[in-house]
Amino acid sequence: MIKRSEVRKAQQRAARMLDEAGIVLTPEERDTIEVAEVGLGELEKTGLELVVYVNTDRYCAKELVLFPRQTCPEHRHPTVAGEPGKMETFRCRTGKVWLYVEGDPTPGPACKPPAGSENYYTVFHQIALDPGEQYTIAQDTLHWFQAGDEGAVVSEFSSTSRDESDIFTDPRIERTPRIVED
Amino acid sequence: MIKRSEVRKAQQRAARMLDEAGIVLTPEERDTIEVAEVGLGELEKTGLELVVYVNTDRYCAKELVLFPRQTCPEHRHPTVAGEPGKMETFRCRTGKVWLYVEGDPTPGPACKPPAGSENYYTVFHQIALDPGEQYTIAQDTLHWFQAGDEGAVVSEFSSTSRDESDIFTDPRIERTPRIVED
Repeated sequence: MIKRSEVRKAQQRAARMLDEAGIVLTPEERDTIEVAEVGLGELEKTGLELVVYVNTDRYCAKELVLFPRQTCPEHRHPTVAGEPGKMETFRCRTGKVWLYVEGDPTPGPACKPPAGSENYYTVFHQIALDPGEQYTIAQDTLHWFQAGDEGAVVSEFSSTSRDESDIFTDPRIERTPRIVED
Repeated sequence: MIKRSEVRKAQQRAARMLDEAGIVLTPEERDTIEVAEVGLGELEKTGLELVVYVNTDRYCAKELVLFPRQTCPEHRHPTVAGEPGKMETFRCRTGKVWLYVEGDPTPGPACKPPAGSENYYTVFHQIALDPGEQYTIAQDTLHWFQAGDEGAVVSEFSSTSRDESDIFTDPRIERTPRIVED
């Protein structure tokens, strides 16, 4: 649950970060930045801000904004109605992002799961992405990611996006934010 | 046909334009920018520079660079081996680009086809794209585009790219550049 005024503040903050990254949005895009408060009531720690440029039945492109140390919680994109789950490429544009995927846990990882949610983070193979670096995640693969101390802007190129079908490790998470008027 | 030294110059110029657009490339990406001299021997007028970020069997993402008034010649993306032709979204990042697609010809268009190639341009429905604006082209639809006087950087999000199957209206065009050593 998130208040409308907090959504607006997060939208403005994300818009500033995109602006600083040299990414131009239309006024309508600025006003409709998606604030994914995922139901834990701690957007600063757990959540994500998104601009969806295009999402057709063949491909999707988004800009993701992470505030400093904000975490997109662990999830996977399953097969839906016989269609293979989303395959996605993350390309870091500004800031720094660490991506965690299935595989051998990396010793001394740069990030910790958000406090209080440790039980719902299970994959710890670390991929560090600086601006200009990218990584592609296969369908139905568990992953989570966290920005560094300056936050991050990350482009996501993918097959069709069906966010409502994402499966989060943490059963408390609701992908569709519930916004309450102030 | 294009000389290796000219390819290098075009790569450096495109890299500078991407840099000015705030787009970070890895050193390897900078060194391998694709210079699409399309066989007419007039890269400044007819051609395109590209960075392919990712091209899987499900989606593709590229950065396109157009020098001032450079034109990507008219072509379409046909069905290949039963797979529908490429669907693509052009998003202008910097500069200005005019896109021409099938439909009612726009009176007083902003661009003219490159001199000497007028016969091979047949669609004149104009879409003007400023930074932050985008347009999606359906599969197998004829289109061409030209940058304004400052050039342009354009992101392309699409289904799988099969450049070698593109059909150009101008039969003189060869999509795969022939590079000759100096």
